Amino acid sequence: MKQATYFIPTAKDAPKDAQIASHRILLQGGYVKQTAAGIYSYLPLGQRVMQKIEAIVRTELNAIDAHEIFMPVLQPVELWNESGRFSEYGPELMTMKDRHDRTFILGPTHEEVITDIVRDHIKSYKKMPLSLYQIQTKFRDELRPRFGLMRGREFTMMDAYSFTAKDEDTNKIYDNMGSAYAHILDQLKLEYRMVSAISGQIGGSESAEFMVLSQIGEDTVLYSDTSDFASNLEVYPELKAGDKSPDGHGILKEAKGIEVGHIFKLGTKYSVDMKANFTNNKGELEPIIMGCYGLGISRLIMALLEQNQVEGKVVWPLAVAPFKVHILLANIKNTEQVAAANTVYAHLQEAGVDVLFDNRDERLGAKFGDADLIGSPIRVVVGKGVENGVLECLNFLTDKKVEIAIENVVQTIKDWL
Amino acid sequence: MKQATYFIPTAKDAPKDAQIASHRILLQGGYVKQTAAGIYSYLPLGQRVMQKIEAIVRTELNAIDAHEIFMPVLQPVELWNESGRFSEYGPELMTMKDRHDRTFILGPTHEEVITDIVRDHIKSYKKMPLSLYQIQTKFRDELRPRFGLMRGREFTMMDAYSFTAKDEDTNKIYDNMGSAYAHILDQLKLEYRMVSAISGQIGGSESAEFMVLSQIGEDTVLYSDTSDFASNLEVYPELKAGDKSPDGHGILKEAKGIEVGHIFKLGTKYSVDMKANFTNNKGELEPIIMGCYGLGISRLIMALLEQNQVEGKVVWPLAVAPFKVHILLANIKNTEQVAAANTVYAHLQEAGVDVLFDNRDERLGAKFGDADLIGSPIRVVVGKGVENGVLECLNFLTDKKVEIAIENVVQTIKDWL
Repeated sequence: MKQATYFIPTAKDAPKDAQIASHRILLQGGYVKQTAAGIYSYLPLGQRVMQKIEAIVRTELNAIDAHEIFMPVLQPVELWNESGRFSEYGPELMTMKDRHDRTFILGPTHEEVITDIVRDHIKSYKKMPLSLYQIQTKFRDELRPRFGLMRGREFTMMDAYSFTAKDEDTNKIYDNMGSAYAHILDQLKLEYRMVSAISGQIGGSESAEFMVLSQIGEDTVLYSDTSDFASNLEVYPELKAGDKSPDGHGILKEAKGIEVGHIFKLGTKYSVDMKANFTNNKGELEPIIMGCYGLGISRLIMALLEQNQVEGKVVWPLAVAPFKVHILLANIKNTEQVAAANTVYAHLQEAGVDVLFDNRDERLGAKFGDADLIGSPIRVVVGKGVENGVLECLNFLTDKKVEIAIENVVQTIKDWL
Repeated sequence: MKQATYFIPTAKDAPKDAQIASHRILLQGGYVKQTAAGIYSYLPLGQRVMQKIEAIVRTELNAIDAHEIFMPVLQPVELWNESGRFSEYGPELMTMKDRHDRTFILGPTHEEVITDIVRDHIKSYKKMPLSLYQIQTKFRDELRPRFGLMRGREFTMMDAYSFTAKDEDTNKIYDNMGSAYAHILDQLKLEYRMVSAISGQIGGSESAEFMVLSQIGEDTVLYSDTSDFASNLEVYPELKAGDKSPDGHGILKEAKGIEVGHIFKLGTKYSVDMKANFTNNKGELEPIIMGCYGLGISRLIMALLEQNQVEGKVVWPLAVAPFKVHILLANIKNTEQVAAANTVYAHLQEAGVDVLFDNRDERLGAKFGDADLIGSPIRVVVGKGVENGVLECLNFLTDKKVEIAIENVVQTIKDWL
């Protein structure tokens, strides 16, 4: 992509209202624009990151036999009256009335809609287990939207739902979902912990949260390096940092966590209320056993930025970098530099590499500043070295900085990727 | 994909409220489920078709240097007051109030939001031309939602917006968009006409509609086989079928059209009202010249079904078929048949072919009925022929029906694709 005709509206100065690094970078780097409090437009750079995260999520969920669907934003209130959640949910629930004065909910989650789909179509134990998921916009009327995409009013989530005839099957899907989440977060190179949790407004029995460790997290997580056990303080208020971990070999540490995922065993809460029954192998009616699983796509962008910036300079993990390689052309009036930059750009494009080419008529200093916000893990500077037939190549993932003969640059980058 | 563990909830009987073939197939074939009047959930089959259409749209728009973004559903009313559209739009506009009693619009289009983004970031002629697009859910409170996804209240559209300093540049982007739309509709194998149109609620000067020809279309289109000229009756009320076409060599025919796309030269309507100005090369302030371009993704699904069904039997074009190949196993208790079906399925999957394998415990007749609704262009029947080492292979695109030795089936299908 040539930057001169692309749309990355970076700003020289940090926005005043952004209190945390990720939020500041999102705005200053031209990833998003705030359209209203807690409501954002994703500009090309932000949209690229989001779509790359979504692609990873889809691959991992398809691999565990979850099937993608797409449910509507607007949910008839009648379904929420059936589950009882309309009166329970509280002021975060966004609603609207249509021209016939019928009430609709702007979905914060989709348990009712999916239960309505399944109860019409799944009548026998033979049709289960079944896992369905969607990536969809969600709504939550936060009293005080803050921290950019961290706590917004309109945000993008993956939500999955499972339907089984037996607890064992739900347990298995729950475990598979946990593993899929781990694979996703591993590919995003995030440092995280899976912690026991309580179920909150969704309801149900067992649940676990996925917490990305970060100073700006809003939950306190206790964990030990010697065991998989991790918890947040709400569930185990008797524990504290410095205590022995359950396996007895380590010491509990305290960290702040950003909740990016939550998996629930719902049991039959929704299926009983909404009469989603199936016929078991003895011909008897039973309520379907459900699970639900959420992963915050837009919030992951914040978590990624928090863990991958130092003093406002970003290095995205390769898997989700908006562009893997950034070519900075120092002087657009120097024909040798222009020729070298064009050649490297063309060859990288031919090789199918996501590459951004800063061919703008700007000072090199300004280009460096923008590049630090755009955060490509590999940078190629086409400058005075061209006189000696070399380009400066930086690999921020390995902290390598080398001068490489122009004809070898493309191969070197391919080796790095 | 193995059908026994997939989710295609077909129905034996046609739904009573579906008046047109495409709507009936969508419901009966398990592509969608109605969640409320004019509001649908896309089940796995429908979601696959939608995502394939979206992928084609993205490829064509990226090729003409349009950049993808993602704007919110909720739009602050203040922006609509600036453009004046809030008071003009009428009862189709869906609105809601947040907990602070602020009014938001559920976006039917995004001219105001995009103009707000651009006016903050595009201050100079040097930053244009610029084209941005999104694929996003849109809202329109139809008085009488009907015909499934044809006239819904919540639907998926691609909407693009262009920003230029000169009319010539807008004209060029407008032409490029028209060509991109044509490429998209050609890949979808749709019979369509591009017709002169009027601009309606969006405003602006010149516009054109893309009409897929169909008996169930709601617009009357006049066209001639000897010229590119086509129009709808609203624009040229003096013309009628049987008249000479403008080039004088043909006769105008009348057809019904489904409007799937609309491209507009907006001029400076929004930029003047919303003060989206740039500095020209003489240092003077001018309003940005805009264009906007809509393509109905969910409506395209209906148009595709209308043109690709005969008496309720569907054959999807290869580019958007939910599965290109459908393997029907006649008898799941016949070990030879099972082995043959499994082998062909595994090899097609290895070859990267989208294949659905009907391995359900159902009568072959029921499998044929469902397959006619699912509409894979290529079908492989694994039945009694297995005793003689052959499978029945059908290519509905070329009306071929042949018996092929099991070991040659995969190669034959690859040749057909």
